[in-house]
Amino acid sequence: MPVKLADNSYGKQAIRLVTVRRHADRHELKDVTVAIRFEGDFTAAYTDGDNGGVFPTDTMKNTVYALAAEHPFDDIEDFGLALTDHFLTSSPRASSVRVDLTEHLWEPIQAGGTVHPSAFRQAGSERRIAEVTRDGQGARVLAGLEDLVVMKTAQSAFEGYPRDRYTTLKETSDRILATAVRATWHYSRPYVAFGHLWREVRRVLLETFAEHDSRSVQHTLYAMGEAVLETLDVEEIHLAMPNRHHIPVDLTSFGMDNRNEIFVATPEPYGLIEGTVRRG
Amino acid sequence: MPVKLADNSYGKQAIRLVTVRRHADRHELKDVTVAIRFEGDFTAAYTDGDNGGVFPTDTMKNTVYALAAEHPFDDIEDFGLALTDHFLTSSPRASSVRVDLTEHLWEPIQAGGTVHPSAFRQAGSERRIAEVTRDGQGARVLAGLEDLVVMKTAQSAFEGYPRDRYTTLKETSDRILATAVRATWHYSRPYVAFGHLWREVRRVLLETFAEHDSRSVQHTLYAMGEAVLETLDVEEIHLAMPNRHHIPVDLTSFGMDNRNEIFVATPEPYGLIEGTVRRG
Amino acid sequence: MPVKLADNSYGKQAIRLVTVRRHADRHELKDVTVAIRFEGDFTAAYTDGDNGGVFPTDTMKNTVYALAAEHPFDDIEDFGLALTDHFLTSSPRASSVRVDLTEHLWEPIQAGGTVHPSAFRQAGSERRIAEVTRDGQGARVLAGLEDLVVMKTAQSAFEGYPRDRYTTLKETSDRILATAVRATWHYSRPYVAFGHLWREVRRVLLETFAEHDSRSVQHTLYAMGEAVLETLDVEEIHLAMPNRHHIPVDLTSFGMDNRNEIFVATPEPYGLIEGTVRRG
Amino acid sequence: MPVKLADNSYGKQAIRLVTVRRHADRHELKDVTVAIRFEGDFTAAYTDGDNGGVFPTDTMKNTVYALAAEHPFDDIEDFGLALTDHFLTSSPRASSVRVDLTEHLWEPIQAGGTVHPSAFRQAGSERRIAEVTRDGQGARVLAGLEDLVVMKTAQSAFEGYPRDRYTTLKETSDRILATAVRATWHYSRPYVAFGHLWREVRRVLLETFAEHDSRSVQHTLYAMGEAVLETLDVEEIHLAMPNRHHIPVDLTSFGMDNRNEIFVATPEPYGLIEGTVRRG
Repeated sequence: MPVKLADNSYGKQAIRLVTVRRHADRHELKDVTVAIRFEGDFTAAYTDGDNGGVFPTDTMKNTVYALAAEHPFDDIEDFGLALTDHFLTSSPRASSVRVDLTEHLWEPIQAGGTVHPSAFRQAGSERRIAEVTRDGQGARVLAGLEDLVVMKTAQSAFEGYPRDRYTTLKETSDRILATAVRATWHYSRPYVAFGHLWREVRRVLLETFAEHDSRSVQHTLYAMGEAVLETLDVEEIHLAMPNRHHIPVDLTSFGMDNRNEIFVATPEPYGLIEGTVRRG
Repeated sequence: MPVKLADNSYGKQAIRLVTVRRHADRHELKDVTVAIRFEGDFTAAYTDGDNGGVFPTDTMKNTVYALAAEHPFDDIEDFGLALTDHFLTSSPRASSVRVDLTEHLWEPIQAGGTVHPSAFRQAGSERRIAEVTRDGQGARVLAGLEDLVVMKTAQSAFEGYPRDRYTTLKETSDRILATAVRATWHYSRPYVAFGHLWREVRRVLLETFAEHDSRSVQHTLYAMGEAVLETLDVEEIHLAMPNRHHIPVDLTSFGMDNRNEIFVATPEPYGLIEGTVRRG
Repeated sequence: MPVKLADNSYGKQAIRLVTVRRHADRHELKDVTVAIRFEGDFTAAYTDGDNGGVFPTDTMKNTVYALAAEHPFDDIEDFGLALTDHFLTSSPRASSVRVDLTEHLWEPIQAGGTVHPSAFRQAGSERRIAEVTRDGQGARVLAGLEDLVVMKTAQSAFEGYPRDRYTTLKETSDRILATAVRATWHYSRPYVAFGHLWREVRRVLLETFAEHDSRSVQHTLYAMGEAVLETLDVEEIHLAMPNRHHIPVDLTSFGMDNRNEIFVATPEPYGLIEGTVRRG
Repeated sequence: MPVKLADNSYGKQAIRLVTVRRHADRHELKDVTVAIRFEGDFTAAYTDGDNGGVFPTDTMKNTVYALAAEHPFDDIEDFGLALTDHFLTSSPRASSVRVDLTEHLWEPIQAGGTVHPSAFRQAGSERRIAEVTRDGQGARVLAGLEDLVVMKTAQSAFEGYPRDRYTTLKETSDRILATAVRATWHYSRPYVAFGHLWREVRRVLLETFAEHDSRSVQHTLYAMGEAVLETLDVEEIHLAMPNRHHIPVDLTSFGMDNRNEIFVATPEPYGLIEGTVRRG
């Protein structure tokens, strides 16, 4: 029976770009990792070793640096739109181009009571992300964040779940809830004030996480997504929230009580809860 | 405008299981990481904090250990089939259950010219993987491997690709090709001799990689997939092969030639080539 | 020729402790990883398999949780002092005990314009560290921080270095300087206000890094250490600063200039500069 | 009070070198990561920003590639000797130079029943290491290996240890012993057949681990070191063996027995046992 190429994609991952815009009064720093993926009519490369249509991934990398020089950007979404526009035009065999952008966040150092104009501190492990996909129909922008690590030490329970022969978990009305939020969303319109709205979504996610009276990770995840949709121009949001378990240590064999104060943080196993909230 | 839960899933990740079967003449060691994911009618947990149908992820973990004790297994595919069967039956709200299994490979230590019966060495970073998904229609098994790191120092070229303003890559008829293969495949029948066929697929992948006269990563990827389908009972195979670039070092400024012998291995950026080969 | 045990140590690594102190108006969160190392007269365990003097590492772990419950602490240095005191007393074979503490930093979430009393965000990858060593002579405290990631986009040069046959680096009066600072220091007195002084040392390190007119990583490293010793009760400070190279991208082959604005951040290779600054 | 530079070092880390020697019948592949560290009279660079004596770390990197081209090597120890010789001669301010070499191991792929001459598979995560230090007195070679991951499922106990108020560990005459060996050693003579002896040390370590009747990690660590010194030209060996705990799962609450067959592998916390065995 014959054999054929069913689907394929290729591209460049982990292109590291740092740009400095040297304004008179301060420097503006962008630190982004870019990944590019092409889909399209590349079958001959696979089946016959014909590279005539294979836009090299090394050229993809060069193009990122060249376009960053030609098109300074404030928001990674804008850079993704420029990159996909260029690649779809310049590579006739590509039917669709996707660019993933991961922004490492820096903030100015405070020195002597003022903001230093050209010295920065990495703000943490949290990252702003965007994914721009473009084909013959146009572009689609997904915005997001990842590794927003948060913890609640009150207003978090997990009770009332079904039990079977293998259930040993104890119900609790007061547990630690800790997670590393990954959120991605579509705005209600194709083009918005990306930077402003990104900060607003992040603020609503954090505030809702803090204030929610949680009965489960699922419950809080939904509340966070619902709050974003109810207050901002977001059409749909996907949230992935690993449950980083903090187990109360049993101190009774040492003749001591644990008044819900001493925990062991465990890296594995961990729960993983996901959900998409959408206007409907 | 109203807001609703569009889709959801939840489960347990990174459940670490090691089993020892103590035969008279030797011990048999299995070292597996298991992940479980439920989809189904869990909306009330998200929207109302109603946990009445939420099978706890802690119970999932316990069940893995209990079933491992009750059902010793030779192949991870079999253990995945047993786990999904149990979970789909015991959790009425789940419409589909997926289990991912990652096997860390060990081999007996040779001591004094013979195979030691109860001492083992981890065989490397390569892992055998399986993904079993079950819903009301039955189960589907995906077998695979990941992090099979290989390199060719001959029979590898990359020439004849299109050039544009941003192209600086030099054509080469003799480059290093290095990659970490990830492959997943479906067998032609739902139930086969999983262990035997897995070893055969791995052998064909390795031999084809070694012997192929490569014009590109795409070209070799397809040849590997094609060889598997042409010789074994495999219906479809997906291959992901990052291109781990090895750049010849320019020694001319030191008054020296590099006769294609001295390379720098670069971790980033890297190409990523993917493709699915299917009977058809 | 006879063979003997020359030196030895043992202990427990990666003990994960999270504590919550539930004040009336707010919760106080500590998140610490603890490592413990014993040295002493444990030769019989090695040479004869005699465990009679081997305080189990599992007991070390239990003790961390028990003492955390009995002795709530503000500063990790204090907890290290309590732990080493306990272990040296309770383990007669140990001649010296060392405890390493790594604190993961959290800050309260701002919600609705106020600080939330029981919801936290992880402040970043930067960590506060302490190392407490105790033997028959008493205890010694080393304080520190690690993974303080900083970057200067001005006031950084590297010129005037010697050249040989293998030198290709171009001199520059304006380069990016980026590093992940690891600093450890001894205070001038055995017992100080650990929390207050730690924040002061961190502030002086950051401000000096920002304001220094750098001729090399070495030059800035020394300036940072000198500033700490000149303004605070610190006796000696060790700094390790990897040079995370940011290479200007050559855009000339694309017919473009790079006005020191477009860089590739490279993970490897990297320089590593270390130095100790001491009163004397 | 005056402040001064107490000690310092600098160098280049993570230099990635891959070499291919193209013999008529087969290719020979070396894959090494090199780190270089200089100590010496570099105070003026720190205190005054005077770079006149600072051999650039970028030149160190170039030199690694140039010397690899000029001096093809069989054993990393030889390459370390050549590098330290060059650097100590060419950098008058350096009083001592240390080179760390980490070799990533590859083996030829078997294809069609024979060894393929130019296709390789990475042999695993285990690495061969060497550290060569040279000063005015001459060179010193330390050989070693790291991440040799091994497990015993029999002949391993831990009993007879002291108990206190915080001890909950159960004694066991039959536990899993798993570790990732890191070993470094000095040979009895400055120059030996490095490759042959390295393979012999590794063989003796593996065989002794497999065959030892273990009362503790300490006990097996010493037996491994002792066996190396008793059979080979090794003067001293240091072993570091993390105790990767495998905990028997309590199945009694599920109405089942665990006949020492079902374990959870835990990444943290872990014991860490170290010791040096020396002729004496």
